[in-house]
Amino acid sequence: MLCKLAPVNIPVALGERSYEIHIEPGALQTLDGLPGAAFPGEIALVSNATLAPLVTDALAKQLEARDQRVVRFDMGEGERAKTLDTASRAFDALAEAGFSRRGAIWAVGGGVTGDLAGFVAATWMRGITFVQVPTTLLAMVDSSVGGKTGVNHPRAKNLLGAFWQPVGVLIDPLCLKTLPSRELSAGLAEVIKYGVIADAGFFAWLEESLDAVLAGNEAALTHVIARSCAIKAQVVGQDERESDSVGRRATLNYGHTVGHALEALKAGDERGVWLHGEAIAVGMTVEARLGIELGLMKPSEGEELLQRQTKLFERAGLPTIAPELDFEAAWRVMTLDKKNRGASVFFVVPTRLGEVVRVEADKEQVRAAMNG
Amino acid sequence: MLCKLAPVNIPVALGERSYEIHIEPGALQTLDGLPGAAFPGEIALVSNATLAPLVTDALAKQLEARDQRVVRFDMGEGERAKTLDTASRAFDALAEAGFSRRGAIWAVGGGVTGDLAGFVAATWMRGITFVQVPTTLLAMVDSSVGGKTGVNHPRAKNLLGAFWQPVGVLIDPLCLKTLPSRELSAGLAEVIKYGVIADAGFFAWLEESLDAVLAGNEAALTHVIARSCAIKAQVVGQDERESDSVGRRATLNYGHTVGHALEALKAGDERGVWLHGEAIAVGMTVEARLGIELGLMKPSEGEELLQRQTKLFERAGLPTIAPELDFEAAWRVMTLDKKNRGASVFFVVPTRLGEVVRVEADKEQVRAAMNG
Repeated sequence: MLCKLAPVNIPVALGERSYEIHIEPGALQTLDGLPGAAFPGEIALVSNATLAPLVTDALAKQLEARDQRVVRFDMGEGERAKTLDTASRAFDALAEAGFSRRGAIWAVGGGVTGDLAGFVAATWMRGITFVQVPTTLLAMVDSSVGGKTGVNHPRAKNLLGAFWQPVGVLIDPLCLKTLPSRELSAGLAEVIKYGVIADAGFFAWLEESLDAVLAGNEAALTHVIARSCAIKAQVVGQDERESDSVGRRATLNYGHTVGHALEALKAGDERGVWLHGEAIAVGMTVEARLGIELGLMKPSEGEELLQRQTKLFERAGLPTIAPELDFEAAWRVMTLDKKNRGASVFFVVPTRLGEVVRVEADKEQVRAAMNG
Repeated sequence: MLCKLAPVNIPVALGERSYEIHIEPGALQTLDGLPGAAFPGEIALVSNATLAPLVTDALAKQLEARDQRVVRFDMGEGERAKTLDTASRAFDALAEAGFSRRGAIWAVGGGVTGDLAGFVAATWMRGITFVQVPTTLLAMVDSSVGGKTGVNHPRAKNLLGAFWQPVGVLIDPLCLKTLPSRELSAGLAEVIKYGVIADAGFFAWLEESLDAVLAGNEAALTHVIARSCAIKAQVVGQDERESDSVGRRATLNYGHTVGHALEALKAGDERGVWLHGEAIAVGMTVEARLGIELGLMKPSEGEELLQRQTKLFERAGLPTIAPELDFEAAWRVMTLDKKNRGASVFFVVPTRLGEVVRVEADKEQVRAAMNG
């Protein structure tokens, strides 16, 4: 018997900028999960050539059948395409099409697509309606929630951008069927992160259900996405612009300080340079060790957390071992990060499963954690 | 006896984005009128070469004396410099200087400078502290208030941008001493507009005091700026994003629908292509006539308003006569405006001195008003 899963709606409470994340296998077939504002009569689909035959072509047809005028923009793929230059090409395409301030921009793709399309939506005619249709697990559970948009600068990732919230996020877990398994695994790094920083019960559920998730079970995937979005939405609702002095939004950065340094140094292993999620998994491993070292957990509890986290990463196909690298160069990246200054660096580390704190660590403490 | 004028502070009430406009002859000597947030330790001055010896060099020295690290960016001059390309050069300069998210961007110059610098502040690291130091009358009474930032696209002015409010606006009327008189006059067009759309008493005061204003009397200039800012701040406070369905912010567009078309067609007279304020003065003349024609004022009252307005423009050195032009081309510009669609165009026209309404007019009505 085929049974249809009930859709899940996750509210993102941001005052007048509030919206819902709609998660439902098959959501792309009906588009029912989006509010009326998503269909203003004129829609620019920002996507790429790989997704065109998988998702975007069919979506364009559906929108046209709903009397929407559709403008397509192929932004290219990967971080290299996420530049001011690509945004500028998008602006030219919109101008060429006579796109008005009443139109909506839909991002159809992964995190790179959402970031760039969101930046275009935030700045076209001082900001127009924006809709997120994330198609990778990473985008579904992380980048499509929270309103961060941006493009890279030769000097640093996401140096230019804006906070710009969508009017709705539509997540169809069926999109994950065509996602390469390595990318699914990379997305799971952020999912596991949510368990460690905010929800021990969800972490335990992941330990039980990871095989079903990896096998593409729709109910399991829907739960993974829904719980992750709910945790991120709650944090973002408390601290939309990461300006909170107690650093609530910063808790999402667990694993990211070391992870970003690994990415900047193009660290990797036999599978090649690590994807974001892979670098983050190694970052979380190093930063959990840092928590133990800084005495924030009893050694036995800390070791248990580290072991359970490591085991889950390994089952998810994620790396956990920091490579041989130039530690001085990695430290330089960490101290250059826009959140840090001077001789110590801020890290988010667990105090127990489901709870983290923000602490400063110095160079030797980080070196020790990095070396394992 | 020298007597020091009391500073005037105009509040701009925008909830958590509220700030004050500080107006004081000599304000640039002390910088006391800005909040502490304007001095975060690192300041990028966006300005141009003409202003360097007049204002910006001295300002940079003062800021350094206050232990601020100063980064300078010369954006060039005029609308031609207000492009995404110039913004991109600014981003490069900030990156080169290692400018952080904690820094502040100060716009020192006219409207073009404020628009571009504001766009850079809105998008650098997803938005940082912004301060306006307008040096032209037009920027003091209009563009520095309200949070509109943007750059031009080859297709249209201000096509890209963001709403981004400053933490403070510092206005030193002494800056106007070095402003070419033609630019002072152009700024007065917007000042006169405020009287017509919102304050008959202020209009009458202008009729009495215009000679003192033109002679550079500090008290008169301070009042002109303060009253204009107060009117604009009130409108903006009611409708920050021009999204209000009753079009409160749109009332500021009196004279601008025709004025923008004149600018797009590079209309002018013996003094050359009109400055924005000059085009707006002609636009207000045409649109007041449109109000009479549409029957929104009794003919006698309408004629009186038009005559008083025309007289004030003439005394201020502003044009009031539409040139011979290609009306079809002007109409095309008006219908292409992002606020309009189809066969009629929205105009803001007076119903009596101090009050305006938003109405639709068709092509023949506009043609008649244009021909006088």
